[in-house]
Amino acid sequence: MINEQYKAMLNGKSQIRVLSEYATKRGQEIGYENVFDYSLGNPSVPAPEGFTRAMIELLSNENPMTLHGYSPSLGITSVRQTVAESLSRRFGIPYTYEEIFMTSGAAGAIAHALRAVSKPGDEILTFAPYFPEYGPYVAGTGAILKVVPADTESFQINFEQFEAMLNTNVAAVLINTPNNPSGVVYSTETITKLADILRAKEKEFGHDIFIISDEPYREIVFDGADSPVVSRFYENTIVCYSFSKSLSLPGERIGYIAVNPACKDAKTIVNMCGQISRGTGHNCPPSIIQLAVSRVIDETSDLSVYETNMNLIYNKLTELGFTCVKPGGTFYIFPKALEENAVEFCNKALKYDLILVPSDTFGCPGFFRMAYCIDTEKVIRSLDALERFVTSEYR
Amino acid sequence: MINEQYKAMLNGKSQIRVLSEYATKRGQEIGYENVFDYSLGNPSVPAPEGFTRAMIELLSNENPMTLHGYSPSLGITSVRQTVAESLSRRFGIPYTYEEIFMTSGAAGAIAHALRAVSKPGDEILTFAPYFPEYGPYVAGTGAILKVVPADTESFQINFEQFEAMLNTNVAAVLINTPNNPSGVVYSTETITKLADILRAKEKEFGHDIFIISDEPYREIVFDGADSPVVSRFYENTIVCYSFSKSLSLPGERIGYIAVNPACKDAKTIVNMCGQISRGTGHNCPPSIIQLAVSRVIDETSDLSVYETNMNLIYNKLTELGFTCVKPGGTFYIFPKALEENAVEFCNKALKYDLILVPSDTFGCPGFFRMAYCIDTEKVIRSLDALERFVTSEYR
Repeated sequence: MINEQYKAMLNGKSQIRVLSEYATKRGQEIGYENVFDYSLGNPSVPAPEGFTRAMIELLSNENPMTLHGYSPSLGITSVRQTVAESLSRRFGIPYTYEEIFMTSGAAGAIAHALRAVSKPGDEILTFAPYFPEYGPYVAGTGAILKVVPADTESFQINFEQFEAMLNTNVAAVLINTPNNPSGVVYSTETITKLADILRAKEKEFGHDIFIISDEPYREIVFDGADSPVVSRFYENTIVCYSFSKSLSLPGERIGYIAVNPACKDAKTIVNMCGQISRGTGHNCPPSIIQLAVSRVIDETSDLSVYETNMNLIYNKLTELGFTCVKPGGTFYIFPKALEENAVEFCNKALKYDLILVPSDTFGCPGFFRMAYCIDTEKVIRSLDALERFVTSEYR
Repeated sequence: MINEQYKAMLNGKSQIRVLSEYATKRGQEIGYENVFDYSLGNPSVPAPEGFTRAMIELLSNENPMTLHGYSPSLGITSVRQTVAESLSRRFGIPYTYEEIFMTSGAAGAIAHALRAVSKPGDEILTFAPYFPEYGPYVAGTGAILKVVPADTESFQINFEQFEAMLNTNVAAVLINTPNNPSGVVYSTETITKLADILRAKEKEFGHDIFIISDEPYREIVFDGADSPVVSRFYENTIVCYSFSKSLSLPGERIGYIAVNPACKDAKTIVNMCGQISRGTGHNCPPSIIQLAVSRVIDETSDLSVYETNMNLIYNKLTELGFTCVKPGGTFYIFPKALEENAVEFCNKALKYDLILVPSDTFGCPGFFRMAYCIDTEKVIRSLDALERFVTSEYR
C-alpha cells in the first residue's frame, strides 16, 4: 500500500528543473558556454576560503569522537551562542542561544517553524510571486497555503487583498525578503504596515499571528536598497535563515531558526523544534558543518558579482523597453513578458538559447525570472542574444 | 497559537537523557572516570582515518562550487551507485542506484520509509523491546504504532502475539536487528518465519505489507552470530541504514534507504522519497558527507572493542546470577533486573555509580540496558562495582 498522495506528486515536474535539464542537454549540443542558462538559483561564487580552512582545521586538530559526535537536538550550544551573538551585534536585537535552533538549511527551518505555530487545517498566507516549494512545505504540515495576489507595480505587498484574506484561521504569514523571484526587498514602509495590520488582527482575533520570515538572501542586498530587519518591527517573528547563498554552501544544508526574543513564547518554540524534529527524522544538521560555519559566522563569499550582473541586465532590459522593477537584492530579476502568455514568451526565447523561467510557477502569470548567478562574461554575451530575441520576435 | 501537541511533548523527558545528565553531573563531583556510565549509545571508537583523509582531500582538491553544490534530492548519483555496488557485492542482491535514497541518518530513513508505505490511520507494528524514538517517528506520520510484546526468553519474535495483532490495517512491520536494546540478532529461523507469515497475510488481505528494517548496527555482529540479510528473505523490504555506528559518525547524520530490487515498487518508492522530503524540509544529506562516506564505503571503525566489552560484562553478569540473553551484536546488553521494578533496581545501582537504563523505556518492563560503548579499562573497573551492588543489595 504505497502512499498515493506522494505517488501522485511524482507527476508534477518542476518547470525550473525541466528548463535546467533542457539547458544541460542543449549545452551538450552547442557547448554549455553558448547556453544563456538563467534557470537555476545556484550560487556562482565559491565558498570563502575561511570556510575550507575551518573544515580542514577541525578535521586535523579535533578529536574525531567529539567532532563527529551527536549534536544536541537543538544544535551545538556554542554554535547557537555564536549565531546569537552575531545577530545581536549586527542587528541590535538581544538574541541568546535559547532563541536559536540549528537546521538543515532554510527548508528545514521553515518546516519546523510552520509546525511550531500552526496545526492541520490552519491557514498560512504568503504573497505572490512566491518560491514554489512553499506549497509542499505547508502541505506537509496539514495546514493550508493561501496566496495573496501580487502587487505587480512594485512587488511590495498588495495590502488590500491581504487584509481581505486575513481571517481568524490564519496562524502565520510567510514572507521572503529579499524576494525570490522578484528580487525586490520589502521596504521599511511595507514591513511597518504589515506589522501594524497583524498586531491589530491579533487583538481582534484574540490569538497570535506569526511572521515566518524566510531570509536566505539577507546578505545579498544592493547599494541603496532599504532593507529593514523584520524582527525589529514585529515581536512574533521567526527568522528562517540559510547559509546556502551567503557562504555558497547550498549542498551542505545548514541554516537556523532565530525566534525574536521579544516573542513571549520564543524559548518554548525553540524547544518545541527539538520535538518536531523527532517526527520528521531531521534531528540536527551535521556537527562538523555547524562548527565550521560558526567559525566564519560574519564572513560571506564575494557576493559583488550579483550586483554587477543585475545592473548589466536591468539596464539592457530597460533599454529594450521591458517593464521591470529594479531588484534590491538576491540574484533574481522579474521583468514583464512581452506577451501575455509568459510560457509562450519563454519558449520563443529558447530559439536564442536564452533559458528564462515563466512566472506561472511563482503564482504570478505574465512575467519571467532570470537567475543571474552566472559569470559576468556570460551575462554580457547574453545581452546580444536578448536583443536579437526581442527585435526578431516583438518588433 | 503555538502547536499544543508539540508543546505537550516538552513534558515527556527521555529517561535515557535524564540518566545521562545525572552521569555528567556526578562526574563533575567525583571525576567522570569514576562514573560507570552505561546510559548512552554513543560510539566509543574514532572514525576511521580514511574518512578524515577523504574529507581533507575533497576540501583540498575539489572545486568548492561543485563540492558544496546542491545534491539532487535523491542523493548524489555517484554516491548512490557506490552504495548499491557495495551492497550487491557484499550481500549478493542486485541493487542499482535507483533503489538507493540518501538520508540524514537512520532517523531520516525511517521517516521517509514510513511515509512512503503508509498513510495516516494505518498501523505500524514493532516488537518489544524497541527503540523509543519509534514512537515519535510513527506519530509524526499520522500512522499508529502498535507494539508486539516481547519474547523475554530469547528476544527473538513473539510470533503468537504477532499473528494475533496482524490485521488488514497493518501497512508495515518495523524491525531492528541487531537490536537496540536487547543486543540480539534475529536468526535465520526468525526472519524466515516472519517473511512466511507476512507473505501469507499479504495474500489474505490483498495488499502489500512492508518490512522496514532499521539496520544501524549491521556491521557490529559478534563471532558466531547467525545474522541473516533481511532483504534476501522478503521482497517488500526497505532497509534503513546509518553510518553513525559503523563509521562512528553519529553527529554527521548520514545514512540511506535501500529498497529491495525484488520489490515491484522499489524505484517508485525511492522517487517518492524525494517528494516526501519536500514536506519535511529534509532535502538531502550534506554533499561533502555523502561524497566522503562513499570513498570509505567498505571500511568501518575498529569495532572489536564492543565484542571484548560484551564478553567481559556477559561473563560477570552470568557469574553474578543474572538471567541474560548473550548479545549477537550492537553495543547493548539487556539483562533481567534482580527485582520486578527495574526503575527501583537502576536507582539502587546509582549508589555504586553504575548508570543503567531501566527497560520500561523500551516497552519491556523488568530488564535494564547497558550501553557498553565505553573504554574496556572502565568496563573492567565497573565489574567490581557491579559485584558490590549485587552482593550488598540482593544477597
